[in-house]
Amino acid sequence: MPFIHVRTSGKISAEQKQELKADFGKQIGLLPGKTEQWLMIQFEEGCGLYFQGNEDPCALLDISVYGGAGSEAYENLTRALSGDIEKVLGIPGNRIYVKYAETEYWGWNKENF
Amino acid sequence: MPFIHVRTSGKISAEQKQELKADFGKQIGLLPGKTEQWLMIQFEEGCGLYFQGNEDPCALLDISVYGGAGSEAYENLTRALSGDIEKVLGIPGNRIYVKYAETEYWGWNKENF
Amino acid sequence: MPFIHVRTSGKISAEQKQELKADFGKQIGLLPGKTEQWLMIQFEEGCGLYFQGNEDPCALLDISVYGGAGSEAYENLTRALSGDIEKVLGIPGNRIYVKYAETEYWGWNKENF
Repeated sequence: MPFIHVRTSGKISAEQKQELKADFGKQIGLLPGKTEQWLMIQFEEGCGLYFQGNEDPCALLDISVYGGAGSEAYENLTRALSGDIEKVLGIPGNRIYVKYAETEYWGWNKENF
Repeated sequence: MPFIHVRTSGKISAEQKQELKADFGKQIGLLPGKTEQWLMIQFEEGCGLYFQGNEDPCALLDISVYGGAGSEAYENLTRALSGDIEKVLGIPGNRIYVKYAETEYWGWNKENF
Repeated sequence: MPFIHVRTSGKISAEQKQELKADFGKQIGLLPGKTEQWLMIQFEEGCGLYFQGNEDPCALLDISVYGGAGSEAYENLTRALSGDIEKVLGIPGNRIYVKYAETEYWGWNKENF
């Protein structure tokens, strides 16, 4: 039950989405018990994003997690996802934020877990 | 002070928005003390959403709540909102996530509650 | 490591974005230790937003904060940001929500803080 929301100031091509989607599906396994089978991803491109007062290319990854995974797992996931965004989209790591929100209440198929 | 953010991979017609908006305005009463008078809703359509590795129609409902409502109330709201999305937009329940975020700090009219 | 996400039902001109961006860069200092140097901002306009059951102009400001800042600091920030939105975009304070999310896990440059 994770959700990864990618926001970028630039564009993401269909090929890049496919590549990132496939990569994320593997990388999400860095959180114990999480798999692509329960992963939702949103790619939002061309966002009006400012970072450090300027409009140079940047990205924000918002990760929502049902329950919690612990700081080491999040550390590993940040490294993997940021490295992937850097590689695929060419946005440097120092222009990428990754933030996490843990939640106790998450519904699927009309019921909460 | 709830906020319901609906994201769908497909389109939502003006008529569907009106229907969902009216339904949500009633269903929000499943959370104690919450009414349409304090409800904000965002409909975001045509999102680049992947679920379970594919792009079949799916939806994510993000519910932000000032304070808390308790697990039973959230359970009831998940059932109502998901059922409504399924009925109005034709997205099956097993392709709908509903996630909740409770917050302690919420401002309106330039002051926090 | 704050992130301010502005959603409005109406449009935001390039000049208005510049003005809001510059103002936010100063106002973020109302949170102890936060500066424009670490601030990311997203302007999302033309959102399908309903508030109180109608589509009159309204706005939602979503503030994500690494760690916490305390209720008085948030109170001050709500007053400053809402006043700014009212002044620059002409949306009345009683049609503006400001909500806060604190998070323990936040990554930058491929590592978590």
